Amino acid sequence: MSPINEERWLLPAGIEEVLPPEARIVEALRRELLDLYATWGYELVIPPFIDYLDSLLTGTGQDLDLQTFKLTDQLTGRLLGVRADMTPQVARMDAHHLRRAAPTRLCYLGTVLHTRPDGFAGTRSPLQIGAEIYGHAGIESDTEILRLVLLTLRTAGIAETYLDLGHVGIYRGLARQAGLDATQEHALFDALQRKAIPEIEALVADFGLSGAPAAMLVALAELNGSDALERAAPVLAAADQPVREALDYLRRLADALNHDLPEVSIHYDLAELRGYHYKTGVVFAAFVPGWGLEVARGGRYDDIGRVFGRARPAVGFSTDIKGLLQHSQGLDARYQQPGAILAPASPDPALHAMIETLRATGRRVLQALPGAACDPHELGCVEQLVADAGQWVVRPLAASV
Amino acid sequence: MSPINEERWLLPAGIEEVLPPEARIVEALRRELLDLYATWGYELVIPPFIDYLDSLLTGTGQDLDLQTFKLTDQLTGRLLGVRADMTPQVARMDAHHLRRAAPTRLCYLGTVLHTRPDGFAGTRSPLQIGAEIYGHAGIESDTEILRLVLLTLRTAGIAETYLDLGHVGIYRGLARQAGLDATQEHALFDALQRKAIPEIEALVADFGLSGAPAAMLVALAELNGSDALERAAPVLAAADQPVREALDYLRRLADALNHDLPEVSIHYDLAELRGYHYKTGVVFAAFVPGWGLEVARGGRYDDIGRVFGRARPAVGFSTDIKGLLQHSQGLDARYQQPGAILAPASPDPALHAMIETLRATGRRVLQALPGAACDPHELGCVEQLVADAGQWVVRPLAASV
Repeated sequence: MSPINEERWLLPAGIEEVLPPEARIVEALRRELLDLYATWGYELVIPPFIDYLDSLLTGTGQDLDLQTFKLTDQLTGRLLGVRADMTPQVARMDAHHLRRAAPTRLCYLGTVLHTRPDGFAGTRSPLQIGAEIYGHAGIESDTEILRLVLLTLRTAGIAETYLDLGHVGIYRGLARQAGLDATQEHALFDALQRKAIPEIEALVADFGLSGAPAAMLVALAELNGSDALERAAPVLAAADQPVREALDYLRRLADALNHDLPEVSIHYDLAELRGYHYKTGVVFAAFVPGWGLEVARGGRYDDIGRVFGRARPAVGFSTDIKGLLQHSQGLDARYQQPGAILAPASPDPALHAMIETLRATGRRVLQALPGAACDPHELGCVEQLVADAGQWVVRPLAASV
Repeated sequence: MSPINEERWLLPAGIEEVLPPEARIVEALRRELLDLYATWGYELVIPPFIDYLDSLLTGTGQDLDLQTFKLTDQLTGRLLGVRADMTPQVARMDAHHLRRAAPTRLCYLGTVLHTRPDGFAGTRSPLQIGAEIYGHAGIESDTEILRLVLLTLRTAGIAETYLDLGHVGIYRGLARQAGLDATQEHALFDALQRKAIPEIEALVADFGLSGAPAAMLVALAELNGSDALERAAPVLAAADQPVREALDYLRRLADALNHDLPEVSIHYDLAELRGYHYKTGVVFAAFVPGWGLEVARGGRYDDIGRVFGRARPAVGFSTDIKGLLQHSQGLDARYQQPGAILAPASPDPALHAMIETLRATGRRVLQALPGAACDPHELGCVEQLVADAGQWVVRPLAASV
């Protein structure tokens, strides 16, 4: 199903409105996901829709400058931004307001805006939902977040997915081992993202590298696929300790996932560096087979709270509810609504009492409005309230009225 | 209770974030209200957060120009606005997309942004919720919306409220009867809003009015209070037919409300002209005693869909969920959450199966993360999963761990 009604002549490109009955499906899925996260101990937070631009573009937000709509605060003249991602705001809540010693699980949901369409199905207004763990570094919190990603997709009616796993410590370690400066590291990072091997070879030669450091950086671009971890062991054998630790970490995470989630296909991409500028460990994305774009993404960014006065380990993920619905199956049936009841236009207190009772049990009762043309079937009514021997009773609605 | 955590040195003035546990209360109230509207037959729609400025400032939006944040669409160069009110967008959905013959009940919920703090408790980011009926003109739809306003406030834990009712047809009719031109009508409107009687008298004299037309315009400013309808009858006896019809309409509406909602105090204010530029009939606001600002507002605006190709009668209301929570009582208790269960960090499949079973029944289970300092009480845990004779069982948590 596609819940999106995007008419370009009426709405800006990539900006959607959601009509009935699709809006009800969005709401039902939203509730089911938040309730799921609650049972895992994730507490809901509601970040503000606009914020000082400084706050939005720190930490995980530093790549979002061009994607962020800017506004001028008429009260102060300061620059505001419309959130393009809620992660920096949630990190601020953990660091600045909650200040708990214990690991803290937070979840959030809301619209974010992008100046240009991005990876999530071309939209500029994803309905972002996500979850984060603050205050724990290790396989256990990474695994918990990845289990939650897969459960989120399954709850959204997406049965088949695969995970793409990487670790920013590998490239970061190899770049350091090769003695690259920041400009060189950045240029090579760009080429790696495009897996442009001839360009990578040329850059490595330009940097005056040779031997194992050069070979390992070039090999990185091809270390992807479900067997990439095995292939990495000989290829990166000459790597320094931090690289070997990152590889070892990925291997242990893979073992834990194979134990907990044996049914999930896992791909590895050791050159995958989403959010390289702020991520500090594992990075991941979830894909739907046959659909080139990721449907969920996340990773570890242990320093995210530093700008807000408190650096804690952090790992989390986010996805777009409207994007998920483009790939989901079976939600219409799961969230099906029973037909409504039509009540006549009458001020009889007994009728009002009966309507109130029915509504209190969750039934939908539409009271007719006198003088208005009304086909009750168009409104989803399948039953009606009629007076029978002085009692108001619910009866099936004739096939046409 | 106040769910608002507004720290001016961190967040722009009037922009709030909502932390746990208050965010859970907001979410619970949001759901209860949307479910309530659903049982009355109101279908949820989700309007876009930004829109072409033209669309936002039509119909009921024409007073919102200064309140609307403007953005430039990088894709087209056209001006966009962040919605300051969702009513024009919902009217467009009814007129352009749904195009039903039958009366249509729609409800909506979401953040709106204002450039400056407005009446709703000084916020610039109300969490607006509202409901509208399209396609019916008359006492019955006005009454239904007013019943829903009062039920909304009661559901939000606000027991005591009063309604302020007016009708824009009264001033509009008197201005026409007096032969005022648009400039004069606007100047007098301004003075009436401020109930500035000497100024009104001066304006009426300036306009060269005398006799009944002058007297009635001056008297209008004082026709407010619970007995205003009775007092209006002799004072406006010389008014033209449209004014007498509007008064008669208000009287019939009052009778219907006294019948349906005998417990509600109703005040009248015949000079009350909220949204005068687009309202066409009844206007109303709900107040909490002792709090000067309205907590909900609405009225009839029968032409709202015209700019979108289809003028249908319309009546509706809106309120701000975060604003309501500042006056509500008893919601903490109603939405209280049972304590959570702490599970140890163990990969035992039997433990995982037990955790899954508990979560499926809605219990919150937090799995401990090894190596992290953790006071389970800080996280709201009251029970724990422990191994007992080869079985995982739920046991009370000792008072301190």
